[in-house]
Amino acid sequence: MKKDKITVADIAKKAGVSPATVSRVLRHRELVKSETIQQVENAMSALGCLLEKGTIAAATEQPLIILNVPELDNVFYLKVIDGALVSAKAHGYRLLINDSPLDRSSIYSFINLLKQVHAAGVILLNHVSKEQLDMIHSVVPLVQCSEYNEHADYPYVSIDDYSAATSAAEYIVSCNCNKIAMINGPMSFKYAVKRQEGFLDTLRKKDISVRPDWIVSLPEVNYQMAYSAVCRLLNNEIRPNAFFVISDVFAAAVIRAAKRFDLRIPEDIIVVGFDNLDISIMTCPTITTVNQPSFQLGYSACELLLDSINHPDMFPKSLILDTELIIRESSAKI
Amino acid sequence: MKKDKITVADIAKKAGVSPATVSRVLRHRELVKSETIQQVENAMSALGCLLEKGTIAAATEQPLIILNVPELDNVFYLKVIDGALVSAKAHGYRLLINDSPLDRSSIYSFINLLKQVHAAGVILLNHVSKEQLDMIHSVVPLVQCSEYNEHADYPYVSIDDYSAATSAAEYIVSCNCNKIAMINGPMSFKYAVKRQEGFLDTLRKKDISVRPDWIVSLPEVNYQMAYSAVCRLLNNEIRPNAFFVISDVFAAAVIRAAKRFDLRIPEDIIVVGFDNLDISIMTCPTITTVNQPSFQLGYSACELLLDSINHPDMFPKSLILDTELIIRESSAKI
Repeated sequence: MKKDKITVADIAKKAGVSPATVSRVLRHRELVKSETIQQVENAMSALGCLLEKGTIAAATEQPLIILNVPELDNVFYLKVIDGALVSAKAHGYRLLINDSPLDRSSIYSFINLLKQVHAAGVILLNHVSKEQLDMIHSVVPLVQCSEYNEHADYPYVSIDDYSAATSAAEYIVSCNCNKIAMINGPMSFKYAVKRQEGFLDTLRKKDISVRPDWIVSLPEVNYQMAYSAVCRLLNNEIRPNAFFVISDVFAAAVIRAAKRFDLRIPEDIIVVGFDNLDISIMTCPTITTVNQPSFQLGYSACELLLDSINHPDMFPKSLILDTELIIRESSAKI
Repeated sequence: MKKDKITVADIAKKAGVSPATVSRVLRHRELVKSETIQQVENAMSALGCLLEKGTIAAATEQPLIILNVPELDNVFYLKVIDGALVSAKAHGYRLLINDSPLDRSSIYSFINLLKQVHAAGVILLNHVSKEQLDMIHSVVPLVQCSEYNEHADYPYVSIDDYSAATSAAEYIVSCNCNKIAMINGPMSFKYAVKRQEGFLDTLRKKDISVRPDWIVSLPEVNYQMAYSAVCRLLNNEIRPNAFFVISDVFAAAVIRAAKRFDLRIPEDIIVVGFDNLDISIMTCPTITTVNQPSFQLGYSACELLLDSINHPDMFPKSLILDTELIIRESSAKI
């Protein structure tokens, strides 16, 4: 092996410490215990990597974290990524963003990527099957963020989608609405399944019947698609008087569609969104929405991943963060 | 050198072909001329890389492109990234997104990253100094996208910010407005400098004076910051009757601030934004804006980069894409 091919990951493995520790020894040795410095230096000389100027430069590669998103187009992910970036930087890691469905046809190439860049860990924002999680975990530590697989035993940071949807549905019913439609995302996501369950269970408990054609699942979080779907529902004699939608982008589409049909919000139709995106205060009326702690989701996921990287023997504890309903003009005259 | 450390980049260099060609030989040899296959296979055996099953798997790493953004928070970048992703995927490359200012303190770590992951090329959405462009170009081919450095001789895909701002300013004047404010981004970006020049030159030609305190440069594209800045301008006896702003996010902030001061849009104040983001049709009124071909900017930048990678001897031609003014409710009763 040539000297200039030795990476921080190689040294870390040899020394039995984390890549971040190797980085600290190389750049901020004042922060590291003397035994650890000795351990790392021993590993470096065992690998034929001397502490000469050029060699250190070659070795001070930042350890990499890959964050994978299913689709970058959904602005909800931006704040999550922001949180993960802040945590990664604070710990001397670099975070790179990859966009892949992580399905059967793309998983092998993703695994190759992790090996190719010697990734130290992975944050997954997709819903990933157990089989594919096992494959990824055989290469690097992983943390699921926002989406997670209930049938696999890997750590995650997420919200309680069922209870968040229950609160939203109960609130809608309390506004005296009984003709309630739901615009959902793709049912391949945990959030879509759980929010729909919470929504339907609540209406069932309140003896409110739901028309099956008023439960719409769209293939992506897309404004134009949602606008078409809502127009189709409003273009009937019997139309909903409330919408529960799983993104504020969809709620903005409901607002525009209502205007097209000369329906007033909140007088004729109320709408409750999800995520508390910036656009929820840009529309007119502003959007009542379920706030997700997006930044914190990403930040905590990265912190959990760093725990996994630095303490491979400890199983990090998953985390469920709180949501809250924010009442704005789209559901109440305030 | 151990067999399992040989990358596509190594083989490509040895064979004198592009990494994409090596990928095609390994995975879709039916698409490749027989001489080229021979060339690649010779290179592989010269590197001690035999065509056994495990070896091929190790070698079929996708060549990587790094796309660097100055701040992911600006949704304008999402469509640009989307375009670059589509082009990269179509050519068998993988695109990873990195978030770095690429300033003096971060450039060395960026250069290390490029070496560490054996990047095949780089797309830069930042404004980068000539010195730092030279450093990056000494490692990999690069293309500048949206932002570019006029004093450096590297290829770019962008728009004509001066002329786009000129058209917007001429339109505002044609709406009989003479008290015009501008909310700009950070002057470290080429777009901010050029748009301000176009704006000021137009008003000068029309003999319209501009109050210096009505030209505001904000440190980032942020809704809350813009809202505060606009409220400050509207909270005076003499207030603007038009706003030219360099992002639809800022235009949305003008709309909300106007409401707070009981000012009607477009009757009392008109506003012209930039980018034609999705939010420009979500607000009420909808936003008159300068459309940027965002997807095409990213797509063309990646195509240009692939030209540079595949034909290192040819200097790729830079490209200026068209913008257009889209008139909506925020400037005219339509």
